Amino acid sequence: MSLIEKLKWRYATKKMDPSKPVPEEKVGQILEAIRLTASSSGLQPYVVLVVTNQEVKEQIKPIAWGQSQITDCSHLLVFAAWDTYTADRINQMYDFADEERNIKSEAAMAYRQNLLKNYPTRDPEINFTHAAKQAYIGLGTALIAAAYEQVDCTPMEGFDPAALDVILNLKEKGLRSVLMLPLGYRQLDEDWLVNLKKVRRPTEDFVINVA
Amino acid sequence: MSLIEKLKWRYATKKMDPSKPVPEEKVGQILEAIRLTASSSGLQPYVVLVVTNQEVKEQIKPIAWGQSQITDCSHLLVFAAWDTYTADRINQMYDFADEERNIKSEAAMAYRQNLLKNYPTRDPEINFTHAAKQAYIGLGTALIAAAYEQVDCTPMEGFDPAALDVILNLKEKGLRSVLMLPLGYRQLDEDWLVNLKKVRRPTEDFVINVA
Repeated sequence: MSLIEKLKWRYATKKMDPSKPVPEEKVGQILEAIRLTASSSGLQPYVVLVVTNQEVKEQIKPIAWGQSQITDCSHLLVFAAWDTYTADRINQMYDFADEERNIKSEAAMAYRQNLLKNYPTRDPEINFTHAAKQAYIGLGTALIAAAYEQVDCTPMEGFDPAALDVILNLKEKGLRSVLMLPLGYRQLDEDWLVNLKKVRRPTEDFVINVA
Repeated sequence: MSLIEKLKWRYATKKMDPSKPVPEEKVGQILEAIRLTASSSGLQPYVVLVVTNQEVKEQIKPIAWGQSQITDCSHLLVFAAWDTYTADRINQMYDFADEERNIKSEAAMAYRQNLLKNYPTRDPEINFTHAAKQAYIGLGTALIAAAYEQVDCTPMEGFDPAALDVILNLKEKGLRSVLMLPLGYRQLDEDWLVNLKKVRRPTEDFVINVA
């Protein structure tokens, strides 16, 4: 199946089959794809929590409009972004890169200095929003990776992030929740969306040529 | 090549070969992948501009730190998000979906009503930020689609969005620029990044299990 066919196959699954867990190997491939994708200045300013504990999922469901996928899925991914950029966080990533590359690239040093000059002094809210956007790149990647593994998923913004941060103890980790992505398998007979045509704006409304 | 291998192959290309344009067919596949990916409530609250006009690219370069990929690439994608959510924009998308599906789904109607109640009255800045995040999902998709077409690209946030909005007349379209993505082919002998090892945080620092 081509990438385009994978994107047509996927949809925001509304009902998952709780009797069908996703194999760990497939979850691993999805996480690896997220880890490998791009982020601004290579900072990867977020983590992915993998919630398999059923009690924790039960706690999350009511702060997310009672969406059934949260407890029916086998693996609930939670994307949580850095609450701000600090010099420590920037240096840690760039030190690690220098170490891995066993070379101090001048261009990388210039990048680091520029980040150190600009990011730590910015309003933490601006920094968090910027970090959160990088998690959306990860989500875009995860959707495709899941489709390649024939795993269903549901991208979710609809939850109370402050409440989720409490449930997952994110504040003490310097993190704030951004997105959830339950992984599971569609339950065909109870999913209202699965048989509806996928609708996207026509290309002529979505693409503007400046030729 | 597997998805993981594609993600390893790609990198933020620093020098593109201006003598090698990307075939239109490949650009079309990349745009189609972006069009097909997910967005919050299916609103697709952004467009993609495809800048091939060299004079326009020359105008953009100085407001983007003089990055050479902007003028060396054959196709400069610009992701531009809705400046806010309006009832018109929401209704237009949901009317279109009803028409395409030839059915009024109750669940879809409930979605629409919820959006109409909440989005148009929110601060436009909050709406724009939310729309912009959806463009990041599109970017995450485009990176992978480009890799599948063996096309190089460079995700860019480093530009003056207000200046770009003027150059591309985005304000009159109710749009604001969010991201750029030049498409082209790497020029191996002049790219400082191409031979450096791709560095990502180790899985144990990137993934947290809540089991």
